Amino acid sequence: MKTKTKSEETRERILSAAIELFRRRGFESATMREIAGGAGVATGAAYYYFDSKDAIVLAFYEHAACELEPLLEDALAGAKSLEARIRALLEVKLKYFEPNRALLGALSGHTDPAHPLSPFSAQTREIRERDMKFFERALEDSRVRISPDLQGVLPRILWMYQMGLILFWIYDRSASQKRTHALVDQSVGIVVGLIKLSGFPLLRPVRRRVVTLLETVSGEA
Amino acid sequence: MKTKTKSEETRERILSAAIELFRRRGFESATMREIAGGAGVATGAAYYYFDSKDAIVLAFYEHAACELEPLLEDALAGAKSLEARIRALLEVKLKYFEPNRALLGALSGHTDPAHPLSPFSAQTREIRERDMKFFERALEDSRVRISPDLQGVLPRILWMYQMGLILFWIYDRSASQKRTHALVDQSVGIVVGLIKLSGFPLLRPVRRRVVTLLETVSGEA
Repeated sequence: MKTKTKSEETRERILSAAIELFRRRGFESATMREIAGGAGVATGAAYYYFDSKDAIVLAFYEHAACELEPLLEDALAGAKSLEARIRALLEVKLKYFEPNRALLGALSGHTDPAHPLSPFSAQTREIRERDMKFFERALEDSRVRISPDLQGVLPRILWMYQMGLILFWIYDRSASQKRTHALVDQSVGIVVGLIKLSGFPLLRPVRRRVVTLLETVSGEA
Repeated sequence: MKTKTKSEETRERILSAAIELFRRRGFESATMREIAGGAGVATGAAYYYFDSKDAIVLAFYEHAACELEPLLEDALAGAKSLEARIRALLEVKLKYFEPNRALLGALSGHTDPAHPLSPFSAQTREIRERDMKFFERALEDSRVRISPDLQGVLPRILWMYQMGLILFWIYDRSASQKRTHALVDQSVGIVVGLIKLSGFPLLRPVRRRVVTLLETVSGEA
């Protein structure tokens, strides 16, 4: 096991203190000075590691992505059908982010892809792409045959579907977010049903149009 | 023609001054005092008509809905096929909101349905439902047969599709938002294609699931 350097330890302590403070006090009103105080370092030292609260949030996203990876691996290993695999990926994420649901809520206003903290930003691209890989794998190892023209775009579609669910979950005021869990439950079946139907020759023109459209939207045409 | 009372005139003057100020200076930094100044009334008078900037924005939404109504009527009257009808409704709205695209951007962070200015809030319900009616009519008078089980939910689905497009448009940095117009162009074809396919008997189970899911999401089950 790799030993952490002193510098890595300090960085992590600041990150934990910040998340703890965001959780207790909300993201907007927390200051770098308070974060430094919580971590037991000087404000200047906190700024040495993170030049802003936004930088801390990005580090939180990255940290979460790393911690999630083995959990998502387990989820895929434990589920066979495509429906079970997608459902498992989604449930792992909702469970993982549960303690920080309010923080994600404070960040969900960043719908502008030009904002660094947006899930669609250049800064979060790497995290986003690593996350899409899990949907790619959920599709690959399942027994559902995906028509070749859709293979490139389906992971992205599933990822966007996930983001929609997370947004719903953030604002779900039902007890233990049971409406979201019902929504996941019902929608995964529909999504997988549509994926299965999408292979029909009849749907070839629609498939082609969806692929073109996604190229337009993602600006990667 | 109905003559406006003095009070109505003052209210409209404050509303115009506010929109003008939001456009020039941004929504966040504008104050009620400045809005009153722009309208040539005392700050207290401005508060008499609108108890907050949020109340002004709600009035702006309502005003826009009223002004849009005849334009949307014309759009429906001038288009025959379902595809042309939906496209016409969407293009009318994008054109109408063009001068206030930045203001809508400032408001788009309100994704929380509990926030009065959210397009999903209780306060905007009436506007939302009137808007859905236009999609209902676009469907009714077209020649596309809608299976009875979908008739109740399709206007809502089309309305949500519209909201997605508007969000994309708000952050579209391409010249004259040409990416959004390409997206409207391509996606309307897909949406109408799917509506036509949705009538197939094969899709009956999916249809039923979609209806149940929408009841879950809208909390109106």
